[in-house]
Amino acid sequence: MYQNVKSDQHIPRATIQRLATYLQVLEAFDKSLDGKEGRERETISSDKLAAMCDVNASQVRKDLAYFGQFGTRGLGYYVTYLIDVIKDCVNANRRWRAALVGVGNMGRALLNYKEFGRRNFTITGVFDCDPFKIGDRVYGLEIYSTESLIEKIPELGIEIGIITVPAEHAQDAAEKLVAAGIRGILNYSSARIRVSSDVPVEYVNFFHQLYSLTYNVSKIQR
Amino acid sequence: MYQNVKSDQHIPRATIQRLATYLQVLEAFDKSLDGKEGRERETISSDKLAAMCDVNASQVRKDLAYFGQFGTRGLGYYVTYLIDVIKDCVNANRRWRAALVGVGNMGRALLNYKEFGRRNFTITGVFDCDPFKIGDRVYGLEIYSTESLIEKIPELGIEIGIITVPAEHAQDAAEKLVAAGIRGILNYSSARIRVSSDVPVEYVNFFHQLYSLTYNVSKIQR
Repeated sequence: MYQNVKSDQHIPRATIQRLATYLQVLEAFDKSLDGKEGRERETISSDKLAAMCDVNASQVRKDLAYFGQFGTRGLGYYVTYLIDVIKDCVNANRRWRAALVGVGNMGRALLNYKEFGRRNFTITGVFDCDPFKIGDRVYGLEIYSTESLIEKIPELGIEIGIITVPAEHAQDAAEKLVAAGIRGILNYSSARIRVSSDVPVEYVNFFHQLYSLTYNVSKIQR
Repeated sequence: MYQNVKSDQHIPRATIQRLATYLQVLEAFDKSLDGKEGRERETISSDKLAAMCDVNASQVRKDLAYFGQFGTRGLGYYVTYLIDVIKDCVNANRRWRAALVGVGNMGRALLNYKEFGRRNFTITGVFDCDPFKIGDRVYGLEIYSTESLIEKIPELGIEIGIITVPAEHAQDAAEKLVAAGIRGILNYSSARIRVSSDVPVEYVNFFHQLYSLTYNVSKIQR
């Protein structure tokens, strides 16, 4: 089978990001084969995957090499198997429960983001510090006080915290999440946050893509 | 002064993303010095910047080396100058006008995302294909029909299109934006889109960070 990459190898962030793109494209491709005979034997070449993802083919092969040699020369990769291997690598083959802290526009957008649920990533607890919001329901979930994070996180089996509060409240939200036993934080606020090093933090910064775009746009001569 | 990087060098995507992070951190740092004497002579070392951004220091130096040598040994970089150089590199030192196509939760969240405006990135046109939404106002902007993109984009001086429609409508939205003369597209839908190669497309995929998080969380032994 394939090498288990989790225990020793370090996979760079840029590779993980491309794996997320491959997964999205492969799942859409697999779904398009729905009902077709021999779907489980369908293969895809690195060239084709590369073209579908706007990545160059040697980069795709390099990224997939983290999993060892499991493509077949001239045939490519089994689609369903490749999906499985990538999911296994990023630990997306299990359910993750998340808490959302901060019910503003961004929070609501994420609560309504269907793709999370389809990928076994479920927001099961919603928190805010605004007394006018606490007790209300949003997309079927009751809004709890951030003060109750400490009880609710273990009670609801939540491992991931999503921060969608304004920048000035992000550090406080992070500390409450960590105190409640969260394992990792996805931070949508623009503030840097400081927590214990055994709690990884990932930042969603919309300027990552926006600046890639303005950089690329400006390089094109008109 | 510094080398102009725009014309010949290619800066990798991962570097551009880190530049966006450096910029965010440097601007917050600069703002914290508000009113302090000698603010314009304030410097920052690559070690300090690295620590503030959770990036290693050699990576920071490598990224900043794209701009040539302008740090001073033992002193570091002038903060305001570094901000300027990074903005110049990603073309963020000018105003960009954007059109948003798709007024759902994600669209509303972006319209209300104050950080865009603070960075001279303004959504000045809002479009939807739902006849019940057309004519309504959202955050002070009238919602136009996507059919009117072709007139409105040049009229409003818009260069960037933001796609926040459901996946199945993304290609159509992209084609209408390109026909209207857009220079680049920021795609928040989960669909890949195909447009002429002189119109760069950037994808915002929330699983990029989410999978980095689940990958990192699972590597930590408890």
